[in-house]
Amino acid sequence: MTMNKIIRINMSADQAPSITEEGLGNYAGLGGRAMTSAVVSKEVPPLCHPLGEDNKLVIAPGILSGSAAVMSGRLSIGCKSPLTGGIKESNAGGQPSQMLGRLGYAAIIIEGKPKDDTLYKIIITSQGITIQPDNSLRMLGNYDLVSKIKEEFGEKIACISIGPAGEMKMSAATIACTDPELRPTRHAGRGGTGAVMGAKGVKVIVIDDTGASFRPPSDPDLFKEANKTFTKGIKEHPVTGEGLPALGTNVLTNVLNEAGAYPTFNFKEGRFKSAAKISGEALAELETTRNGKATHGCQRGCIIQCSGIFNDKDGNYVSKQPEYETVWAHGGNCGIDDLDTIAKLDRMDDDFGVDTMEMGTAIAVAMDAGLAAFGDGEAAINMIKEVGKGTSLGRIIGNGAAFTGKAFGVERVPVVKGQAMAAYDPRGVQGIGVTYATSPMGADHTAGYSVATNILGIGGNVNPLLAEGQVDLSRNLQIATAGLDSLGLCLFVAMAILDNPDAFGAMVTLVKGLTGKEFTPDDFNALGLSVLKNERDFNLRAGLTSKDDRLPEFFKKEKLATHDIVFMVEDEDLDQVFDKI
Amino acid sequence: MTMNKIIRINMSADQAPSITEEGLGNYAGLGGRAMTSAVVSKEVPPLCHPLGEDNKLVIAPGILSGSAAVMSGRLSIGCKSPLTGGIKESNAGGQPSQMLGRLGYAAIIIEGKPKDDTLYKIIITSQGITIQPDNSLRMLGNYDLVSKIKEEFGEKIACISIGPAGEMKMSAATIACTDPELRPTRHAGRGGTGAVMGAKGVKVIVIDDTGASFRPPSDPDLFKEANKTFTKGIKEHPVTGEGLPALGTNVLTNVLNEAGAYPTFNFKEGRFKSAAKISGEALAELETTRNGKATHGCQRGCIIQCSGIFNDKDGNYVSKQPEYETVWAHGGNCGIDDLDTIAKLDRMDDDFGVDTMEMGTAIAVAMDAGLAAFGDGEAAINMIKEVGKGTSLGRIIGNGAAFTGKAFGVERVPVVKGQAMAAYDPRGVQGIGVTYATSPMGADHTAGYSVATNILGIGGNVNPLLAEGQVDLSRNLQIATAGLDSLGLCLFVAMAILDNPDAFGAMVTLVKGLTGKEFTPDDFNALGLSVLKNERDFNLRAGLTSKDDRLPEFFKKEKLATHDIVFMVEDEDLDQVFDKI
Repeated sequence: MTMNKIIRINMSADQAPSITEEGLGNYAGLGGRAMTSAVVSKEVPPLCHPLGEDNKLVIAPGILSGSAAVMSGRLSIGCKSPLTGGIKESNAGGQPSQMLGRLGYAAIIIEGKPKDDTLYKIIITSQGITIQPDNSLRMLGNYDLVSKIKEEFGEKIACISIGPAGEMKMSAATIACTDPELRPTRHAGRGGTGAVMGAKGVKVIVIDDTGASFRPPSDPDLFKEANKTFTKGIKEHPVTGEGLPALGTNVLTNVLNEAGAYPTFNFKEGRFKSAAKISGEALAELETTRNGKATHGCQRGCIIQCSGIFNDKDGNYVSKQPEYETVWAHGGNCGIDDLDTIAKLDRMDDDFGVDTMEMGTAIAVAMDAGLAAFGDGEAAINMIKEVGKGTSLGRIIGNGAAFTGKAFGVERVPVVKGQAMAAYDPRGVQGIGVTYATSPMGADHTAGYSVATNILGIGGNVNPLLAEGQVDLSRNLQIATAGLDSLGLCLFVAMAILDNPDAFGAMVTLVKGLTGKEFTPDDFNALGLSVLKNERDFNLRAGLTSKDDRLPEFFKKEKLATHDIVFMVEDEDLDQVFDKI
Repeated sequence: MTMNKIIRINMSADQAPSITEEGLGNYAGLGGRAMTSAVVSKEVPPLCHPLGEDNKLVIAPGILSGSAAVMSGRLSIGCKSPLTGGIKESNAGGQPSQMLGRLGYAAIIIEGKPKDDTLYKIIITSQGITIQPDNSLRMLGNYDLVSKIKEEFGEKIACISIGPAGEMKMSAATIACTDPELRPTRHAGRGGTGAVMGAKGVKVIVIDDTGASFRPPSDPDLFKEANKTFTKGIKEHPVTGEGLPALGTNVLTNVLNEAGAYPTFNFKEGRFKSAAKISGEALAELETTRNGKATHGCQRGCIIQCSGIFNDKDGNYVSKQPEYETVWAHGGNCGIDDLDTIAKLDRMDDDFGVDTMEMGTAIAVAMDAGLAAFGDGEAAINMIKEVGKGTSLGRIIGNGAAFTGKAFGVERVPVVKGQAMAAYDPRGVQGIGVTYATSPMGADHTAGYSVATNILGIGGNVNPLLAEGQVDLSRNLQIATAGLDSLGLCLFVAMAILDNPDAFGAMVTLVKGLTGKEFTPDDFNALGLSVLKNERDFNLRAGLTSKDDRLPEFFKKEKLATHDIVFMVEDEDLDQVFDKI
């Protein structure tokens, strides 16, 4: 089936939400982030309230999603962000993207606002789409929700859902996607997409692709060959072929800690003395000992398998393997070095539907304000419990780090455009500081992962401790990432395509082989550029300026002790990231 | 004594805060808002954190303050606002401005940030300025604080102070000025100036002007004659000569309610059916019955006496007469119609040091979110108690209406640039909507009080229900107001000068008579213009754009039932307010 349908669900309709199907029209050829950002940029009034009827929630599989291309199952979710006030695309792994692609849906656009607080579920099958009120789902955590949905719809489904945080419209609320075991563990985590879904009154989208099969390539031979070469490139790269499968994303803990760029105690230090206790090595060993898994895929078709399964000491499932950024946010950044505590926090975040990075940074800010001591794991757990309950403290934390900082009068808050930074200090990895500052998404390490080149030596070498070269590096990576996010590819393929021209060529050829349309490396570049231009344009019209493309001043004033340096890229140079595109 | 000294107090100094005195330099000829906005615009880095060491708190008496000119005792306080992120000038009545003027201080600039959380008091006498640590003042309410200060320094003083809210750095924290009875009832209420004073570690400024006398006019005869004509103009105007002395600012309750522009239930309706119970008439009667006062001045030299004294049923002092905007914010906007409840809230706001308008609008937003029912006075009192204690809910409310709306996912929040609107619906008084939208201060009725012309017919007539004429009206009033705020004059003199050319001429002549420098009506206009230009320039550099000069969208979508109209001034026209200056 070709991926040629756009579905609009209007929640404002008088009697019940209305569903209309249309062709791709002006959005032909787009997918993933290119689709969500085009729709949001074109259709959402930039000054609208993010929780209001004029915002739209756009859910789009990548251009390659639903095909047999490896690593192609990322789902993009876009809207005006309640967290940043700018445009948002947040993407997630799990099963939904492949299934939507196979069913032929290029985008599901949820519009309007229901007249009352009725909760709805949307069911998508090969027979079409239905929407039903279901107030029995109210305030269910994602885990209980999926269990209940499973009882009704069976096991051959995938879910896209929100937890209580989304229903409560918290700015750090996520949208969860289920993994192959039907667990709500893969989240469009950033920017509060879950609050927008909550404001639309949609609790869950249930997808059953029974009867659908892989999207057929237009040129099967070309596609198959390209897929083979692409697979080989990924398998042969040391990071995607060895490091990530063995230790998952937590392979980075020791690396960043040794590089002195591991933000500790709310970005006060660059090294956590207990890092070894929460490293990838420690985590993998614990998982294996407890009959969990140190290697696991978040979706079918994944050949990296960077995820894992974390069990408690009795061998009972707690959560998927917490990602590096989660272990950092709830761990080193809060001075917490206990993996059981961190896994419990990860589970609660997934269940309530909140961004783990935003939660960990918010808790660290609250600790800085004196609400708890750094290292107090029980206090952190209690704070997340409050988020789930929606108490006043929970509302504060659940609205993220910037909000928490303002609530408690804290000056040192590591955010850009209201969104929290990730597990890389911009003073120790100056290239990621450029991405944090300039990405249209707010501080987002995935938007242009300069860490790869600064620290891992992938795609060249740029000294992480100097300003030189970082602007070009970040720009190029942001363009490439926007392209990858549009194809629906897992960001980790970037490792292979940056280092291996054959893998890059094969990736581009996959698009041509699938769609039958010419698609060159230049087209890939142009796609990424057009995405960023749409996003920057939206933000400009939403009132953001170059003044929003800046790091908080403490990164320019306080030296990071491990290297005795501040963030050194000048404002004028930051402006060159996008002035030159 | 001439008002020719600028004092800088640097809280960052190594051992103890340092005090330096300098001449006026480039700031010669400025005072009040012209002084604070010039200093902030010139010296404060626009992207600094409002609670950080780079922000400055500038306290400046008006150009006429300290002289014998009537109504000339407004004190301007400026900084980068923690509430709006833009420049802030908030001014207050009370005694301090006249006393600082008589002592010759044109500005007190508090800079830097203390190394620890020691609290300081600053003592200003005719002998000079000293600063002392005093942690015994910590978390005292303004009333207890002033009592304690009185014990130490006697009764012949005035205080400029913060309550617990300022110490907790809440964005709605005020700076209190004492009235002639040494009560902390006159507040620089808007934009969180109190949080900046708190961040500087200054709890109170004690002023004793013993030994100082009126600033001597350069041309005594000219000055005296002008003061007489100015006084006559004010006394003869029906609003300042009759309405305000009799009923205070609450003379407006019935007027605005009848005009159908009295925001009720969080701006859902334009008329409050119990308005008569909280009107100026009802308040004055109650005050008189209980041996309070319906007529009272907030400072010596006041010839309007729009204030009053509110006693409880046993005749014990509760608070000064709550102002019209306070009675509205805590009253009609929350559906509360009990004056004792409102007076108690006013007292608590003054004691904790929070903006009554921001509190009332925040509580109404919280009521809209379901935290309490509209009309529940006890719930409102409890919320303000939480503010004083700094609980999580208190932190939410204490950071204002916009923050409360975000905490609880409320879409309808009546703010511009993060600052709450006042007691005038911009749909029923379209001219005040233009001021709300475009003032560099955020939504601020005092920045260009179009209500005067739209509703009271002062300074001409512009139909409140049409878009026509509102942009010119608001611009002219904003320019004139910036001038008045610079002279240190009470805004109510605007009534007289708008309707009476002789009074206007006399006001301008007062400046010439006092300072000996030429000062014409054109100079007055140029002064106001230059203030606004400084302010707009700062905001631009702080990242604000024309997109911030907009009302929340619900005012353009939801009709106000009393008139069946939305806010109709177009965006392009709003941009003309300042594009033309």
